[in-house]
Amino acid sequence: MIVVMEKGATKEQVEHMVQRVESLGLKAQTIVGAERTVIAAIGEKRPETRQSLESGPGVAEVVPILAPYKRASREVKPEPTQVVAGSLRMGAGAIGIIAGPCSVESLDQIVTTARAVKAAGATALRGGAFKPRTSPYSFQGLKETGLKHLAAAREATGLAVVTEVISPEDVELVAHYADVLQIGARNMQNYRLLEAVGHTKRAVLLKRGPAATMEELLLAAEYILNEGNTQVMLCERGIRTFEAHTRFTLPLASVPYLHHKTHLPIVVDPSHGTGHTYLVPEMAAAAIAAGADGLILEVHPDPEKAMSDGYQSLNIPQFQATMDVCRRVAAALGKTI
Amino acid sequence: MIVVMEKGATKEQVEHMVQRVESLGLKAQTIVGAERTVIAAIGEKRPETRQSLESGPGVAEVVPILAPYKRASREVKPEPTQVVAGSLRMGAGAIGIIAGPCSVESLDQIVTTARAVKAAGATALRGGAFKPRTSPYSFQGLKETGLKHLAAAREATGLAVVTEVISPEDVELVAHYADVLQIGARNMQNYRLLEAVGHTKRAVLLKRGPAATMEELLLAAEYILNEGNTQVMLCERGIRTFEAHTRFTLPLASVPYLHHKTHLPIVVDPSHGTGHTYLVPEMAAAAIAAGADGLILEVHPDPEKAMSDGYQSLNIPQFQATMDVCRRVAAALGKTI
Amino acid sequence: MIVVMEKGATKEQVEHMVQRVESLGLKAQTIVGAERTVIAAIGEKRPETRQSLESGPGVAEVVPILAPYKRASREVKPEPTQVVAGSLRMGAGAIGIIAGPCSVESLDQIVTTARAVKAAGATALRGGAFKPRTSPYSFQGLKETGLKHLAAAREATGLAVVTEVISPEDVELVAHYADVLQIGARNMQNYRLLEAVGHTKRAVLLKRGPAATMEELLLAAEYILNEGNTQVMLCERGIRTFEAHTRFTLPLASVPYLHHKTHLPIVVDPSHGTGHTYLVPEMAAAAIAAGADGLILEVHPDPEKAMSDGYQSLNIPQFQATMDVCRRVAAALGKTI
Amino acid sequence: MIVVMEKGATKEQVEHMVQRVESLGLKAQTIVGAERTVIAAIGEKRPETRQSLESGPGVAEVVPILAPYKRASREVKPEPTQVVAGSLRMGAGAIGIIAGPCSVESLDQIVTTARAVKAAGATALRGGAFKPRTSPYSFQGLKETGLKHLAAAREATGLAVVTEVISPEDVELVAHYADVLQIGARNMQNYRLLEAVGHTKRAVLLKRGPAATMEELLLAAEYILNEGNTQVMLCERGIRTFEAHTRFTLPLASVPYLHHKTHLPIVVDPSHGTGHTYLVPEMAAAAIAAGADGLILEVHPDPEKAMSDGYQSLNIPQFQATMDVCRRVAAALGKTI
Repeated sequence: MIVVMEKGATKEQVEHMVQRVESLGLKAQTIVGAERTVIAAIGEKRPETRQSLESGPGVAEVVPILAPYKRASREVKPEPTQVVAGSLRMGAGAIGIIAGPCSVESLDQIVTTARAVKAAGATALRGGAFKPRTSPYSFQGLKETGLKHLAAAREATGLAVVTEVISPEDVELVAHYADVLQIGARNMQNYRLLEAVGHTKRAVLLKRGPAATMEELLLAAEYILNEGNTQVMLCERGIRTFEAHTRFTLPLASVPYLHHKTHLPIVVDPSHGTGHTYLVPEMAAAAIAAGADGLILEVHPDPEKAMSDGYQSLNIPQFQATMDVCRRVAAALGKTI
Repeated sequence: MIVVMEKGATKEQVEHMVQRVESLGLKAQTIVGAERTVIAAIGEKRPETRQSLESGPGVAEVVPILAPYKRASREVKPEPTQVVAGSLRMGAGAIGIIAGPCSVESLDQIVTTARAVKAAGATALRGGAFKPRTSPYSFQGLKETGLKHLAAAREATGLAVVTEVISPEDVELVAHYADVLQIGARNMQNYRLLEAVGHTKRAVLLKRGPAATMEELLLAAEYILNEGNTQVMLCERGIRTFEAHTRFTLPLASVPYLHHKTHLPIVVDPSHGTGHTYLVPEMAAAAIAAGADGLILEVHPDPEKAMSDGYQSLNIPQFQATMDVCRRVAAALGKTI
Repeated sequence: MIVVMEKGATKEQVEHMVQRVESLGLKAQTIVGAERTVIAAIGEKRPETRQSLESGPGVAEVVPILAPYKRASREVKPEPTQVVAGSLRMGAGAIGIIAGPCSVESLDQIVTTARAVKAAGATALRGGAFKPRTSPYSFQGLKETGLKHLAAAREATGLAVVTEVISPEDVELVAHYADVLQIGARNMQNYRLLEAVGHTKRAVLLKRGPAATMEELLLAAEYILNEGNTQVMLCERGIRTFEAHTRFTLPLASVPYLHHKTHLPIVVDPSHGTGHTYLVPEMAAAAIAAGADGLILEVHPDPEKAMSDGYQSLNIPQFQATMDVCRRVAAALGKTI
Repeated sequence: MIVVMEKGATKEQVEHMVQRVESLGLKAQTIVGAERTVIAAIGEKRPETRQSLESGPGVAEVVPILAPYKRASREVKPEPTQVVAGSLRMGAGAIGIIAGPCSVESLDQIVTTARAVKAAGATALRGGAFKPRTSPYSFQGLKETGLKHLAAAREATGLAVVTEVISPEDVELVAHYADVLQIGARNMQNYRLLEAVGHTKRAVLLKRGPAATMEELLLAAEYILNEGNTQVMLCERGIRTFEAHTRFTLPLASVPYLHHKTHLPIVVDPSHGTGHTYLVPEMAAAAIAAGADGLILEVHPDPEKAMSDGYQSLNIPQFQATMDVCRRVAAALGKTI
């Protein structure tokens, strides 16, 4: 950590800060520059340390040097993690494809879709039973009935089930039926929920919040890893920016950046990441080209009749065509889907 | 709702969409323009309707006309709501000042601070007992012990207690001690939590998420109002933008905008909204000038030693000076603090 | 255009607005909804019309239906445009690769680089002679000497020259040496400059401003097209967002979106779009997978010694490797580079 | 400047970077931490230095310590600058009010408006003669005729004239008629234009670009100051964010932040900063409360008939009411307008 003193900071202020640094159990090394003095604080341990120093007298800013996450870091674990959950394998060379409707609407709908997406190459089934909705007046999901339908679809196809959990009190129930627990973007910093899924044996798909930094995403993963659950996948699903022609802005540079920083698999969601069906196929292919370890795609047999998210869902032929392109792009990179 | 057809949409596509609109229980009125056809869908009811129409054939976009929130809307309740919770009165002419430390650290710290902020003019006490922290390695709060300290501080000063609740399972406990339940920015769309506080008799301070639109904020309030709790205050605490010289960007135009749209009181948090102590006094005064119904301010007797957020906390003399300016600005607008 | 009246707008206000609409030469059709009245204004012509209506009494908002750009629109010209400038062909199936240093530093540097990038597959040479720099104390470019070096490099390799022009008064000079005039992101809305390049016979590479919407980008292109120059390429080079781990956020969904809206070729700049060398190869491949008609890449024989932008430049072996991957991804899509 | 090496950087890489730092004329001081090595580079001079070091082997990042602007900095000139231009005085305790229409439309319109805004307390007149417009099909201004009308309005009222210049070639002409040359947000980084106005004797109002950082704004001012013109005012007019309920997001914390960093006067534009007439009065008052040295406001006798920006213009009674509130808020802070 580097404590930058203000220009004109007094000798007393510098000495005060040196003592503060040392009282925090760190070693202080003072560097007197042409215009300013900076203090290097060596051996840093905790996020609080930085904040504590920032309010010191004569301090202009405090610059952190080390990443605050550990277990998620490639510095701690250089080799990539592969998550395995039923039929789904993701990371360390394996590309997983999670496909299915936004919401489970009926037994017939989910089983039919599961069969169709499996035939086209999906390796896991998605479908929401507990739905977090922006408006209290929107469809909130079939809840446990939906989970049962998902389990039936797994029975019928062998596809692993990926479904969202939105509250700590539901974790046990959802984990009973699901292979992968999805943490939605709105809940990325719902720490009780992160701890709760960290206590299970289920793999977790953690979606980036639309205003979360990479560091916040990795620290959210750290909450799960810290409870002993190592089967965590990170999902880029788009951020909030001034752009209004897409529902979110999908920043694919997250993929190589995260591969550089963490050993966890990186999944991309081009459905939420664009919000428009006609943009999904190109962005799915682009995600694979950027090195994604997997995709999560909204697919519905009849998007116009979907109870949610129809505007960004692929129908079955569109999904097949998307998979064909993605397979060819993966092959161009020496990978297989 | 206006369904805009693509240029070149066929007669069949237009007819198909007219039938879709009517099948949703709406009246369709077709307008043939110079270059495009649009269909006005009259009598809209639900957010799903829009999404359902967007995936229709030949549809370019669907433009909503009505706001999706109702109970929070000034169109439904034109007169302003005043929230009353113990010593705190906020809205409809009353300006409330909530002040105190980020975290409750000890009985002595919170009682001392409570006395000092009351003397300077605060009308409620803030202090975190359950702390949502970005890193699992950061101080997580004193939990129930902290709540007890807060209650003791209320006992000593008469100040209403405002404190955060971060999980539905804690709501009953926190409501036992607190006068106002705060929903933090990270939890603005934690719908189970919103419903849980909606079931209590406590006033709620709902903070805007850093990437939330005004509509999403009002819909989050709608979740609480919809459960029967009408004592909701909205809090602008800054958004995520490309600006890095402040921790968040504090958009004060939210205040007059929200006053235009909703009857609920609007509170501003200049501490989180700027992230730097030296910017807080000016932004507090600016918030009052913009018409805010209240402020929530981080105040700590010794910010350099605070266990969290010291870099954005005012010390007692700074808080007094800030209050003096705010009082004069309020008086200039014909209001009193 | 749809004029949405406020709830509770009076009959007089509606009538006033109908007359306003008609006085602008449009046909008005009034639609009385369950809660609001809207007026469809049919036959719209100019951007001003919207603004003029927005300040009317009782008007809640005005929703435009038609895109304000015309010549750039696919509705006007459905078939894709191919830009041809010397050795560069871009669009309508052709993928162009523009590579070279940020700045022309010397004759030797630019000729050496030109030979190397040509050998690796580049189809045009980039290099800045007039440099717009954030700080007045930064290197501002070799100016006409740089242009002469670029012309010498073209002589030596046959590669078309792409270089930036930053002021209307330089257009004639730069057009004398260059094959493609580049308009930088900072100048996307420098309308005099757009008009000036619109008057030349040179192809134009128009970079998106970091806060520009798609509509503003297309309207900037419209300024050039409107002067009679049809050889315009649009370049996505990243936008300003809250993300700090990349210099800009590169939103590749711009590529399929723009292909949907315009016939002009779409180029991607992964160098500025990420700001870090190690992220460029993946994002170059992703851009091709997203359907880009071309790439513009910063390449320098010795990035550590570059006078500008070394941190985001590829060296020659990195460029070769990037080209190899891009060629394979293009082949996977049935295209050739 | 602090060069942060990657964890695991080799001794050779550290030595290489020490040599690079020294070859740039800086002194290197190596600090070996618990997990990483950092190199303090003492005596930094130029922005290029940072970029040059960032592409070194084993370098994780380079952290700048000094601000890159000098003449605009309060570290160089601690006392505030007061700009004086005709009737306008701005900064160092003086609050200036610039008011008038977006565009000069006719002699009568501008003279009438000038008289009205003067009567209500404006200290300068704004009005556009050269208009930069997003669309080539929009009204582009009356050009020299407009300038003559502005001069006539000054003659009639004594108000200083503030008007935009959009191209270096027009600077002489505009400076002939105007008291203050306005650089619009789109041209904040049009460096030739900045240099051109830097050569004149006219005061300059420099508007922040909607995606510009504070540092970029101050460096743009540096271009003007560097040419010898010290009469520069900075104007916050809103930034591009995800917020869509206002045209731009107006971050008033810029005011105290800039006062902390620079001696130049800070002006706020609540008209462009909100984009809606009904939000302007509150944001004008808030800007004064935040410590702004002045305001620039769009005022039109009949906004509904304005040729541009009517939706964000105040009419005369609204301007009078806004001035009344601003005067009272200024008085509350011990200032006068």
